[in-house]
Amino acid sequence: VNIAAIDLFYLAMPEISSAADGTQDTLLVRIRDESGLEGWGECDASPLVTLAAYVCPRSHGNIHGLREILLGERLETPADILRLHARVLRLAADLEQVHHALSGADIALWDLLGKARGEPVWRLLGELECDRGVKSHPKLPYASVLFEATPEATRQRAAELRAAGFRAIKFGWGPMGCHGAEFDLELVREARSGLGPEPRLLVDAGMAWKEDHRTAFERAVAFASCDVGWLEEPLFPDAVAAYARLKAFSPPLAIAAGEGCNRYRFAADLIENGGIDVVQIDAGRIGGITTAFAVRRLAEERGITYVNHTFKSQLSLTAALQVFADAEPFHLLEYPAGGSALSRALARTDLEPGPDGLVRATEAPGLGVEVALETVRQYLRPVRVEVGGKLLFESGETGV
Amino acid sequence: VNIAAIDLFYLAMPEISSAADGTQDTLLVRIRDESGLEGWGECDASPLVTLAAYVCPRSHGNIHGLREILLGERLETPADILRLHARVLRLAADLEQVHHALSGADIALWDLLGKARGEPVWRLLGELECDRGVKSHPKLPYASVLFEATPEATRQRAAELRAAGFRAIKFGWGPMGCHGAEFDLELVREARSGLGPEPRLLVDAGMAWKEDHRTAFERAVAFASCDVGWLEEPLFPDAVAAYARLKAFSPPLAIAAGEGCNRYRFAADLIENGGIDVVQIDAGRIGGITTAFAVRRLAEERGITYVNHTFKSQLSLTAALQVFADAEPFHLLEYPAGGSALSRALARTDLEPGPDGLVRATEAPGLGVEVALETVRQYLRPVRVEVGGKLLFESGETGV
Repeated sequence: VNIAAIDLFYLAMPEISSAADGTQDTLLVRIRDESGLEGWGECDASPLVTLAAYVCPRSHGNIHGLREILLGERLETPADILRLHARVLRLAADLEQVHHALSGADIALWDLLGKARGEPVWRLLGELECDRGVKSHPKLPYASVLFEATPEATRQRAAELRAAGFRAIKFGWGPMGCHGAEFDLELVREARSGLGPEPRLLVDAGMAWKEDHRTAFERAVAFASCDVGWLEEPLFPDAVAAYARLKAFSPPLAIAAGEGCNRYRFAADLIENGGIDVVQIDAGRIGGITTAFAVRRLAEERGITYVNHTFKSQLSLTAALQVFADAEPFHLLEYPAGGSALSRALARTDLEPGPDGLVRATEAPGLGVEVALETVRQYLRPVRVEVGGKLLFESGETGV
Repeated sequence: VNIAAIDLFYLAMPEISSAADGTQDTLLVRIRDESGLEGWGECDASPLVTLAAYVCPRSHGNIHGLREILLGERLETPADILRLHARVLRLAADLEQVHHALSGADIALWDLLGKARGEPVWRLLGELECDRGVKSHPKLPYASVLFEATPEATRQRAAELRAAGFRAIKFGWGPMGCHGAEFDLELVREARSGLGPEPRLLVDAGMAWKEDHRTAFERAVAFASCDVGWLEEPLFPDAVAAYARLKAFSPPLAIAAGEGCNRYRFAADLIENGGIDVVQIDAGRIGGITTAFAVRRLAEERGITYVNHTFKSQLSLTAALQVFADAEPFHLLEYPAGGSALSRALARTDLEPGPDGLVRATEAPGLGVEVALETVRQYLRPVRVEVGGKLLFESGETGV
């Protein structure tokens, strides 16, 4: 069967703030084959710019729009997805936005193929590796939330999350790095105080110290006293040399990074040259499940930890989980808690934590996700793009 | 003074082919200050996707459109440009297209500031380094053209370019890598035959051997018999490990790469970990003159060669030259020969080679370029973008 339609949906909350909350808008990609089956993907990216990457006119041999590249192509086996993935990266090699855009299509292709085969995506990925006995392993979900404006409010939020049953919590961004060493430590201390001694606590510094590996090291030492599992993105994502210097000081907790990786090499660079301990990959940015899976394999080879980065809907969450569902040593799963009304209502899955607090990949075909079309209709932001008098895109042209 | 207007112009030839010819369309950025002065920049990028990066609605704290980020900001000194550059990279950190888009604005800001100061950009860059005695040095332009379909036609083209007075020529892409070792060598042999023994001959393989460093090495050995100055992009730009393996074999000519770099780290990775001998930076992709200048400094520190990549109009060419006009050891200048009618008519400069065949950066303020408005009008492809019923962009809203 061939790819018959690629539909794009720009969804957004009525008001968008400058908070570090990536759930305020989204771009969904729906791919349908000739038999009427459909797959869905979600990009963690600017919806308008990503949509433009699908519909843009050709510029030359290395810039074609993704819709033009993919429409009509054959889709029958996992190898077809690898071929289409490579085709996009070749024919849109000079389109900078290509990885963010391809992420949505790649995820949708895996979903579609899984449905066609009656297999979950994580098992199809095992097939890629000729590993047909692949089993999934439960993951410990960590709630991913923002630091509150004060240490006190952060303690209260931590206590709520603990009461909700989370056994691992990550706090990030907010005022971290804005008010000096003592305030930063207070934020982390009060987070720990609200959680009590049991739950795992992770800290996301949100690039607070830019290229300053010394300050990052001092904070790592301070935070370690609060039993913090990892310190995430203390430095700019491109500051690979600064990561290497930080690691050379042997900080007393793991250093995590990688959420911004938008190509395989970027992740390999952080791992091989930055020396990070935990690589956090967003399948909605790096080029989809295909590229994320390649980074997971690299993490296994190098003996470091792979974990997803997800701060979108459960559609993104289940896509992220497929990548490493069968990897027993990679036990943590970033699990968005909170987020916008749009994001919470967008997709239904079976990924609720069980009585033991763990999340399991299911046997449902594809991604095992149902997109709520009423939510798509409710938050749809209609887009119309004309170039040279020609209509390149209009929302609703194919219906929801 | 403050930034008062940012105007965007999508220009294109009536027909766009899939040839590796990046001059078939373009995006121009014009920035005006309150005093009425204006600066121009050109992006080597998909015009529609890049335009979208300027006008896209905010998604969250790390995705803002570039127009929103820059409008109203102060512009009085080179330090202001560095500040604005960092501001864009921070407030659009999760916008993958940001570097391609920022390139146009950054180049336009340097042009504008140079005009306000009555200084050429290359001298303002020296000021950044507290080097007020900076002098420009002439460059040897190399004509950059595509291989013809056959070795014979390539020889003829080479003879024409030699007759036109070029002392250095680069052939690239076309059938290179498509028909086996003997054909590849014939292409290069006939190029040398058409040029005669004097002119420098450079070869651009156009990523022909992907990640296969062994074939790249074999071709390097073969081509060296034709007195080839460098072998460019034998491998995929992300194949840093394969570049390192190729270099470990000690090929008998220089290995060049880097034109696709769309962030500083990408270039640093190729230099530090790929071991390339020549780094080729396109100021219209990597984030503008500011980022290109930083890579030039890194090349100087590491003792390798910096050269521009330019396959656009003379507006891009003069921007590229500013970056290393004062660097005497970096003697070559990629000089687009040919290109579309649009590209050839777009910008007027004083960058014609002199009687000695060399090109000199001038003392003209800013970039020393005059954009041909009649060409802009002739090739303007009108764009209209609406999101959520709101008009985000319409060509001509500010006039040409």
